[in-house]
Amino acid sequence: MTFTIKGIAASSGIAIAKAFRLENAELDVTKKSISNPESEVARFDEAIKVSNGELEVIRDHANAELGEDKAAIFSAHLLVLNDPELLNPVKDKIKSENVNAEFALNEVASMFVQMFESMDNEYMKERAADIRDVTKRVLAHLVGVTISTPASITEEVIIIAEDLTPSDTAQLNRKYALGFTTDIGGRTSHSAIMARSLEIPAVVGTKEVTAKIQNGTMVIVDGLDGEVIVDPTAEELATYRAKKDKFEQQKLEWAKLKNEPTVTKDGHHVELVANIGTPNDVEGVLNNGGEGVGLYRTEFLYMGRDNFPTEEEQFEAYKSVLENMGEKPVVVRTLDIGGDKELPYLHLPKEMNPFLGYRAIRLCLDQKEIFRTQLRALLRSSVYGNLKIMFPMIATLDEFRAAKAVLIEEKEKLVAENVQVSDNIEVGMMVEIPASAILADQFAKEVDFFSIGTNDLIQYTMAADRMNEQVSYLYQPYNPSILRLVKMVIDAANKEGKWAGMCGEMAGDSVAIPLLVGLGLHEFSMSATSILPARSQMAKLSKADMEKLAEKALSMSTAAEVVELVNSIS
Amino acid sequence: MTFTIKGIAASSGIAIAKAFRLENAELDVTKKSISNPESEVARFDEAIKVSNGELEVIRDHANAELGEDKAAIFSAHLLVLNDPELLNPVKDKIKSENVNAEFALNEVASMFVQMFESMDNEYMKERAADIRDVTKRVLAHLVGVTISTPASITEEVIIIAEDLTPSDTAQLNRKYALGFTTDIGGRTSHSAIMARSLEIPAVVGTKEVTAKIQNGTMVIVDGLDGEVIVDPTAEELATYRAKKDKFEQQKLEWAKLKNEPTVTKDGHHVELVANIGTPNDVEGVLNNGGEGVGLYRTEFLYMGRDNFPTEEEQFEAYKSVLENMGEKPVVVRTLDIGGDKELPYLHLPKEMNPFLGYRAIRLCLDQKEIFRTQLRALLRSSVYGNLKIMFPMIATLDEFRAAKAVLIEEKEKLVAENVQVSDNIEVGMMVEIPASAILADQFAKEVDFFSIGTNDLIQYTMAADRMNEQVSYLYQPYNPSILRLVKMVIDAANKEGKWAGMCGEMAGDSVAIPLLVGLGLHEFSMSATSILPARSQMAKLSKADMEKLAEKALSMSTAAEVVELVNSIS
Repeated sequence: MTFTIKGIAASSGIAIAKAFRLENAELDVTKKSISNPESEVARFDEAIKVSNGELEVIRDHANAELGEDKAAIFSAHLLVLNDPELLNPVKDKIKSENVNAEFALNEVASMFVQMFESMDNEYMKERAADIRDVTKRVLAHLVGVTISTPASITEEVIIIAEDLTPSDTAQLNRKYALGFTTDIGGRTSHSAIMARSLEIPAVVGTKEVTAKIQNGTMVIVDGLDGEVIVDPTAEELATYRAKKDKFEQQKLEWAKLKNEPTVTKDGHHVELVANIGTPNDVEGVLNNGGEGVGLYRTEFLYMGRDNFPTEEEQFEAYKSVLENMGEKPVVVRTLDIGGDKELPYLHLPKEMNPFLGYRAIRLCLDQKEIFRTQLRALLRSSVYGNLKIMFPMIATLDEFRAAKAVLIEEKEKLVAENVQVSDNIEVGMMVEIPASAILADQFAKEVDFFSIGTNDLIQYTMAADRMNEQVSYLYQPYNPSILRLVKMVIDAANKEGKWAGMCGEMAGDSVAIPLLVGLGLHEFSMSATSILPARSQMAKLSKADMEKLAEKALSMSTAAEVVELVNSIS
Repeated sequence: MTFTIKGIAASSGIAIAKAFRLENAELDVTKKSISNPESEVARFDEAIKVSNGELEVIRDHANAELGEDKAAIFSAHLLVLNDPELLNPVKDKIKSENVNAEFALNEVASMFVQMFESMDNEYMKERAADIRDVTKRVLAHLVGVTISTPASITEEVIIIAEDLTPSDTAQLNRKYALGFTTDIGGRTSHSAIMARSLEIPAVVGTKEVTAKIQNGTMVIVDGLDGEVIVDPTAEELATYRAKKDKFEQQKLEWAKLKNEPTVTKDGHHVELVANIGTPNDVEGVLNNGGEGVGLYRTEFLYMGRDNFPTEEEQFEAYKSVLENMGEKPVVVRTLDIGGDKELPYLHLPKEMNPFLGYRAIRLCLDQKEIFRTQLRALLRSSVYGNLKIMFPMIATLDEFRAAKAVLIEEKEKLVAENVQVSDNIEVGMMVEIPASAILADQFAKEVDFFSIGTNDLIQYTMAADRMNEQVSYLYQPYNPSILRLVKMVIDAANKEGKWAGMCGEMAGDSVAIPLLVGLGLHEFSMSATSILPARSQMAKLSKADMEKLAEKALSMSTAAEVVELVNSIS
């Protein structure tokens, strides 16, 4: 009988196919006495060696197919797999207790997993997931079981799983894996991000797909509305095939806008640009008709490694992005580390409230050598394209002035060394702290541009951690207070002849777009795949009408009223 | 030779006397084999019993001298001292390992201390301090050493210590302990709060007083400027005696203002009211000429116990405050728990960013039974005085409406039960989240009053945890962005004929006061001992001049410029 399971729409599109359950093989880790510890250790070493080989293949495959940043996780897995802090205790246990390798590995790994999971820190919790993924691989080799992986699929299916591990997603083949749905996860979990990047429809966080869907059952994954239809009727199949066709049709129409400028119905132009994390992402920006890069997150250069990237490594990355983007603007955000993003080699202090702590520009102004290296690399790369630099987490004018002073110092040093540096680098700031939005008129006199980071701005303005489920109802992009802050920033920029962009999730949100057009936002930076839908939406809007809409929204008292207002026009 | 040590001014005034070092006795906890574990356990039990008796005496003394809230910590210590989770492992260790009680206790206690200290949570860290304090007391009895305590002092001295434990401060005798100075601590640490409450001059956080000051050395503690002058010259002694006299003189002049209204030079009246934590604090409010209570923090009713206070217990507390304040207004803040304030029996989830988490009104609207009990107690108490109720951490109008709806429901129930309830209870809100300051014009239509909570408002607006030393430079009350938010709230209140107060530390700050008078703040709520100095300061200010001053400050770009501006007028 047909039924529907609700979940979180993680990647848009409709997929229809038979269910393929990605089972977690039962791996027997029962404690057994062994008579020859030396040969048991050798057996363990062999399983490590084979796992190493497998992971290297997966990493290289991921590197080629998905890009360096997506492959970085496998470098992390390889580090785990070769970590003496994990391996030695296992071998010691085998030898001192005369137990089997499966048991010893499971005991030691569980201890580490538990330790990392109990830490109040997302980064460390992810390390727990890494250890689990790696341990499972080694255990499978020890036990002699083949774990079912997406790589073994050779027909069109919908993958049903509790969750997809990074190793799973790296092996997804778009030809056969038409869509997937999982019990756990949210819009920002690893599997969801991968689904969007691969353009595979996905519904996550359903809580019950593995409990309710048998292998081979026909399934529809509706990644537009976050629903999974199990064993659909002929009528439902027809409805969803039509919905799928309509979506594909829309995608084709969007594609036609690829080389068009972004213009409202009444002829007002805005810039639609993309957020990127690595040089590999540039291809997607150009393929999706991006008019530039509005946010190059440089953190990835620093992550998944055990020391700082050199000036040269950074220079190569920045140069590559600038060259490939040609004349198009590239806004590079300087290092925004700390908060939920840690670097193991930076030895950041543990903080009670990391989101309100030592991070981004605060850290860079305190540990200036890290900052100087990045600025030198950026300055050197500036001659290869249209570089703009922005500082994250600016709360006070003192900070902006201090950061800009370091930039000027480094520029002067380079010039003295006869290194070529562009003279037309715009220097701006993120507006993601309420204080800087409220004081935007003062900042506007000294910056070249603003980029509003709504993810943080909303969480500080509402005093609600957006990662905390118990208060996530307060993460309200449409709250009139947020719209008022956005207006303050845009008005301040206009008054001084500067420009204001937005690089948070809100910039690509179809409910927010009419309001932002009305408020006069100059630049919208979003994930590359959102650019064409946004361009299409904007072409249907009249700026003059949106101005009236925004004015109404600013005088409303709740987010719900604003959403109702925007919905009333479409 | 004379020299000066700098520290943090924790409690104002000047004290001059000989140094008395509060030494940490060396307690020998070396491991020893014992032959009769049963008698060793008996010896341990005896030490616990004696310690229990001592702590009960200290608690009762603190209760009588300092009030219930200050005594609560000793109830907590008694809980620790009788906790089977601490005692049983010690006894087990004595019996299973045949070791001495000192060693066993130290081992077990250290384990707990380490565990609590490693937790990323101020509340738990304080539990570690409690265990240390209690363990030291029991060890002293086991070892047979008398720990030097302030109670043993019988001449006028300045106490020199690494830190003062709660047991130490509870035994301070103002007659002999003229002042104190410590190596560690800040303005909000336990010892600093106690010093202000006892009106003993204190300088904390000096890092080096115990290392540099010998017993018996003459010492000046300057709690006005945060300096400790060691072995002063005759000239210095004269200077500081004069400074002391001037301060005492000033205190006498302040005292004359006790029954006067608060009026500026040009005849503008504002209300000067006090922040309190328990009914015992009312006496201090009246003694210091408070015109009311601007913030009654009800959390203390819920703390230092192992279950919720009943409606009856709460009713008695509220009634007592209202009756003792007579016709004067009493603004009661409903429960603000969570964040850095936890209740062990509430089992709050561990959060990554507790300051941005599930707390205050968020928790009360989610766990309505807790909220309803408090509201019923408040409503019942309303006939005994001039009650006003305010909700903490309001971020959206939806929350304010929901909280007020619960209040009205409970009122209607009481009326139906023929319980008397006042019909003139004003219902307002704290403004401590940027969103509600920015949208104050909308809130002002529905609330009866605002009270600006600057401690939180500043930390959210600047996105900087004020407890985090690495970013504490961003805790800027004078940042123009903060002043602009304050102005938004006051203007919104004025427009709708409501009133706006402030109950954060800023309200009693002598640099902020001229600005707040200029912005038109109606009510200033501060610690009781700040009221008379504030009244004295305001009498010297012209509101008309301060309006011009505030206007200038609002258009400045940094906090430093604002401070310079205010300093230029005095």
